Formats: sequence, structure tokens, C-alpha cells
Amino acid sequence: MEKRVAFDEMVDVFTTILKQKGFDDETSKISGRLFAENSLDGIYSHGVNRFPRVLSYIEKGYIDPKAKPECINSMGAMERWDGKLAMGNSTAHLAMARAIELAKDNGIGIVAIKNTNHWMRGGAYGWQAANAGMIGMCWTNTMPNMPVWGSKNRCIGNNPFIMAVPRSNGAHVIVDCAMAQFSYGKIEEAKLAGKQLPFNGGFDSNGNVTTDPVEIEKTWRVLPVGFWKGSGLSVLLDLIASVLANGDTVTAVGKKREDEYGLSQLLIAINPKVFNSVQVNDEIINELIEDIKSAEKADGVDEIYYPGELELMKRKENLQKGIPVVEEIWNKILAELNK
Amino acid sequence: MEKRVAFDEMVDVFTTILKQKGFDDETSKISGRLFAENSLDGIYSHGVNRFPRVLSYIEKGYIDPKAKPECINSMGAMERWDGKLAMGNSTAHLAMARAIELAKDNGIGIVAIKNTNHWMRGGAYGWQAANAGMIGMCWTNTMPNMPVWGSKNRCIGNNPFIMAVPRSNGAHVIVDCAMAQFSYGKIEEAKLAGKQLPFNGGFDSNGNVTTDPVEIEKTWRVLPVGFWKGSGLSVLLDLIASVLANGDTVTAVGKKREDEYGLSQLLIAINPKVFNSVQVNDEIINELIEDIKSAEKADGVDEIYYPGELELMKRKENLQKGIPVVEEIWNKILAELNK
Repeated sequence: MEKRVAFDEMVDVFTTILKQKGFDDETSKISGRLFAENSLDGIYSHGVNRFPRVLSYIEKGYIDPKAKPECINSMGAMERWDGKLAMGNSTAHLAMARAIELAKDNGIGIVAIKNTNHWMRGGAYGWQAANAGMIGMCWTNTMPNMPVWGSKNRCIGNNPFIMAVPRSNGAHVIVDCAMAQFSYGKIEEAKLAGKQLPFNGGFDSNGNVTTDPVEIEKTWRVLPVGFWKGSGLSVLLDLIASVLANGDTVTAVGKKREDEYGLSQLLIAINPKVFNSVQVNDEIINELIEDIKSAEKADGVDEIYYPGELELMKRKENLQKGIPVVEEIWNKILAELNK
Repeated sequence: MEKRVAFDEMVDVFTTILKQKGFDDETSKISGRLFAENSLDGIYSHGVNRFPRVLSYIEKGYIDPKAKPECINSMGAMERWDGKLAMGNSTAHLAMARAIELAKDNGIGIVAIKNTNHWMRGGAYGWQAANAGMIGMCWTNTMPNMPVWGSKNRCIGNNPFIMAVPRSNGAHVIVDCAMAQFSYGKIEEAKLAGKQLPFNGGFDSNGNVTTDPVEIEKTWRVLPVGFWKGSGLSVLLDLIASVLANGDTVTAVGKKREDEYGLSQLLIAINPKVFNSVQVNDEIINELIEDIKSAEKADGVDEIYYPGELELMKRKENLQKGIPVVEEIWNKILAELNK
């Protein structure tokens, strides 16, 4: 039987462990909840399954439990923060909360962070903005993990990019996508299952595109989204965040560090209620969503999902049934609790 | 021998014709220059080659030479404009100019436009922002021209998305990409040349992905950039622009009109000199650009170009040698001049 854990229990476990590691109550609560919410929404790779690595990053000193992210520059609707290598997810949450406040006064708010840690699942901050009635946009850079178009070298990042639009019923429309076609996790998963990827995901040793995860792992020449297009988008996302944060680019992260920390991020909130009522916004959004939901389905397609719909469905299911966990990983986390 | 036209001559020709069509001097000058600059940078599809269709749109009344775009709402760093179906490229230029002014006061400026016309090449407004020392981001919606992921229907747009980062030497870093893998023009071009596309660009009649332009034209099921990812990005770009502009979404444009007009656009400028000197920004950018330019090349690749480099090279070449034109199209435009 599959092991499932109740959401509230999972929040408590993460929060308690983080407190034990030296994070203050508020940070532990925000961060613990974000880890649990990622698993709740079905993004297990950045929830339970990632938590042990986060603990190891605390031990290695990449994540500093005592650090307090700080606003170091402010002007109009824009702020620059130093993440000070505090916990990545709570820092991004704090920054998006600040962008939301700035957007209340200015229509739009923008916070750039340097020197921060992996924010886990970027979509979390899109949901955060949308839950506050805001349009959210945010992105992060990463360590070098994808070849720039034309190269064999992994020198650019997959730099996840998130956009979110709120609906008053909570069924927000949210896209959260990295600039690589498939994550390392998906490629590894296909390899372990002995399967091909559903579409080309990288180059083989002969320089041809392939769906074969075994071949891709030989070269690690993963494909950017849309080939040269995703390569270009990755470079621009990186530069915009790094310049505004005065932080490290993917290039600088790769030169300076063995692991993925000391990143640059950008969080933007835009207030859609300044000129429109919530009702008008809902009508604009709902007309489009109804249109795509009712479009003629391709062969073998049972339903067309709008961006964010699957996460919301999974959230409802996991809230009701509990969150499925890999028992070995969950037990490892529980053991930490009893240390 | 290939026909080439000097840049200044081309600007004059476009400007004069637009004046004849009833546009005021200022609009004719801005718009005429933008058409010429698109061809100058090698984006012929949205310069000379597009101009005859623009003239036909004026005749059909889609573009109104007498209309003046107007700011209808303003709050903090954000404005909403009614494009009033004025010329699309000059309207977008005006809006980006306004976003740049807003960014001077607020760090960031954002202008949403409803009821506007095709802006031709979105990259133009990225260059505009970068030439003013600003980071630029902008996007537009379109008529329905791409199936949402999972569907056979073309119900979403290819919604071009632009990001630009300035360098003090004018060699700005700019990405300008539609959310479809290949434009209709590229697919048609490959078909006429009897060639395959370099990568899969759409579905054939059996529902398989294909590089064959003939097969793609049978279904017009073009592929979004990164499959489901580009489909999601397209939906969010559309919703953000339309909600902030209170304008028509791709869905609404498709329902209301036979042709592509009455669009929604969003233009954002961010001031990178608020907290950093230009020199610091240059250093951050140059380190990354040097790194990707010097990355190990894949087989058959002579040079790795940073986003925007090829346009700058083409601009220099065409400024020196003149802009190559399809003589038949150019003569048609000249004939208009002498009407």
C-alpha cells in the first residue's frame, strides 16, 4: 500500500526540523509550509524528495539558518535584496510578498535578489501572487546545466520562468517552466523505466536529436525549449535578474561554486485591480479558458487542461487522501526529527 | 544583380507614402523609420515585404490614419492606453517611450495597450528600450494561429515575446521570439524550396510530429516552442496583456474579426542604472557573453552568436551596402509613391 501523509502533518514535520536546524520560528513556518505545498501540488521533486538534499546544504554551509535577507536598495516600485544565503524558498516568498506590497502602491512591484538559494518550485511564488489577487512573474537563474545553442558545453541555465494570472475562484492560471525541454529528473526517470522520452530531449553522441535518455546522458547536451529560442530566453532571463540584483549570472555561479547556490532571482507583481474590477478580469480570463477547454481534441487526448489546472486537481486529491511519499525518503526525514 | 536600397531612401519612401495616406508628420516619421529599420536588421518579413499588406489594411479601415492613441488610465508606474486602431508600430513605439519615462521615475514602467494594430517586429521595441539604456520586455497577442496543446484547433496565438538588456557599446542582448517553433513564413519558404524544416515544426495528418512543410500545411497544427510549455506561455502572455489592457484576448480577436487587428500588447521598461553604474552592468553582461561565445562548438558550427548579434551584423552590412529588396515588391511600393 502506498504511504500517504496528511498535509498538516507534513507541514509540522518540516517546520519542526527547520527549527531544530536553527531557523527562526517565522522562517521555519514559511519554508516548511512551502516544502509541503510543493508535494501537495504533485511537485514531489521539490517537496519531500528534495528535503534531504536541502538538509545537506545546511550542513555544508550553503544555506545559513541564521541569515536574514535584507533590502539593500529601494527606489519607486523597485527593490534590491541581498539573500545572504538564507533559505531559498522563504526568501523568495518574502520577496514576492514585498513585490505585492509595492504593486499595491505603484501598480507594479519588482524585487531582485542576489546571493540567494534555490527556491525549489518557482510556481509557488506565482500561486502566492495570484492568491493575493496579483499577476505574478518571476524567474531564477541556476548553475550551468544546458548548452547554449551551437555548443556542446553546458554553460547556460535552465532558468525556470513563471507567469500567473489570478481568478477570484482560486483557479488561477499559472505556467511554470524551465528553459530545458526535460529536467534531469525526467530524463533519469525515463532511463530507469527503460522508456523513450515523448519528444526529442537532447543530442546523441553523433550530434543528432534523440528521444533516448541513455544517449542523452552520454552527452548531457539537453535541448532548450524551442532549440535556439529557449537558449536565447535563458540568456536574457539570466542577464535581467543578475543585472537588477547585481548578483552572479549562471556563468559566475559556474565559475565560483561546485554546487547550486548564490543565485539571482527576480520577482514581479502587477495589480490587475487598479483599472478593472475583479469581475471584468474573471470574464476576460474565463472566456479564453472555456474556449481552449472546448477545443477539438487531438487523437488520444481525453481532456485539454489550462495551465495550472493539473496542480489544482492534484492539490484537491492530496488534501483529501494525503500526500503520497516514497516511504524510504519520508522515514529518513522522520529520523531527522528524532535526532 | 540584387537590388539594394539605401536606408535613408527607404525611410523617406515609407514616410512619404504614410503622409499621403493621411498620417500626421510625426506618426509617418516614426512608423516609416520602423518599417525601414526592420528590413535594415534583416527582418524583411516585417519591413518592405509587409508594407503592401499594411497599405491594404489602411484601405480596409483596420488601421485608422487619423486616430491618436490615448492614455485612458494611469496609476503609479502603470498606464493603460487605447490604441484606437492607429498604426501599430508607431503606437507600440509611443507606449515603450512612455514606459521608459515611467521607469525613470519609478525604476520600472509598464504600459498596456488595447485595441491596437500589429506592431510588426516586436524586437524593435526591445532595441528602443535598450538604446535608452533600459531593460525592455514586451509582448503582443495575435489572431488564433496555433493549436493549444492537446487540440487540433488553432485557438491560441504565437504571441511574440521580447526581452532586451542594454550594453553601453550599443551591442545590446535581445531575444525576440514567437511561441510557435516556426512562423508561417518559414514553413511556406521551406515548402517552396522543396526542403524539410531543420527540426519538427508541426503535426502531419496522422498526428505525428514532422519536419515536412507540405504535411504541416495540410493540418496547420504547428508546434509551440517546447510543445506544452510554449502553449502554456502563449496563454499566459495573452491573459496578462489582455487583462491589464482590458483588451481582446486571442480568443476574442478570433471571434470578432476575420483579420489580425484590435490586439492587446504590454510594454515594460526597467531602469538598470538605478542601483548600478553602467560599467558594472556592462561587466556582468560581458562576462556571460564572452563565456558563451567561447564555448566549445558543436560539429558544423562556425560561430556561436549571442541573442541579437546577427541582427546587429546584418544592420551594419545593410547600412553599408544598402538593404536588399525583392524588386517586384519595392517597385509596387514606389508606384504607390507616384499615385
